[in-house]
Amino acid sequence: MAYDPGNIFAKILRGELPAYRVYEDARVLAFLDIMPRAPGHTLVIPKAPSRNLLDIEPEDLAAVAAAAQRIARAQMTAFEAEGITVTQHNEHAGGQEVFHLHVHVIPRRLGVELKPPLSYKETADVLAEQAARLQAALAD
Amino acid sequence: MAYDPGNIFAKILRGELPAYRVYEDARVLAFLDIMPRAPGHTLVIPKAPSRNLLDIEPEDLAAVAAAAQRIARAQMTAFEAEGITVTQHNEHAGGQEVFHLHVHVIPRRLGVELKPPLSYKETADVLAEQAARLQAALAD
Repeated sequence: MAYDPGNIFAKILRGELPAYRVYEDARVLAFLDIMPRAPGHTLVIPKAPSRNLLDIEPEDLAAVAAAAQRIARAQMTAFEAEGITVTQHNEHAGGQEVFHLHVHVIPRRLGVELKPPLSYKETADVLAEQAARLQAALAD
Repeated sequence: MAYDPGNIFAKILRGELPAYRVYEDARVLAFLDIMPRAPGHTLVIPKAPSRNLLDIEPEDLAAVAAAAQRIARAQMTAFEAEGITVTQHNEHAGGQEVFHLHVHVIPRRLGVELKPPLSYKETADVLAEQAARLQAALAD
């Protein structure tokens, strides 16, 4: 399947759309999901134009995985998480909604169910505070 | 959190328990989930004793991600999948049940919901046939 550069994550990468950025390196960007399934829900994406797991280059995939690990560890501190749920969806049948590869990294607490996908839009103030908190944990 | 070598995936790695193996390399083993959420549901694990994403070494994490990609691509062929769902759970709060890192790689078809986790045990005959089919696709 072809890569469509008009997707919203490509626009975030090009600076055409804002995002609550929390981590960036040569190959990867991470930012908060504005429709979080739990507080601190973060998306990790490659900078390269990859549609999903089926087409991403190995070096980019390794960088995305490494960044997801960094985010997960920081979330344990920043959000007093007791666990982390990671999901990654490929093609419509696999649950993919935006066709630029993204990994969901979601802080969890015991007994707290995830919100359904796309069920809740977080406020700007809360997202800004959470992004700052996660950045601080990543800098430790 | 400490790694407990008595977990069932460690036993599979040591050959103390059987598994429907589909892929193996120096760092990684992949085998069918005997309680699949969809036909072809595969688990990818590192050979190193990693509890989950929070403690795995970078080289092992990269190898697990690369193997998950290989499995996903082979599933698209072997199971005529239209998409792939990937999940990975960390600690009890994150949904982890076996405390050796594992990535679920699940073939999907449009309009077919995933079975709930641990809701269905597949028969040995079906699993053996599916493992052979996935091995063949991986060899292509």
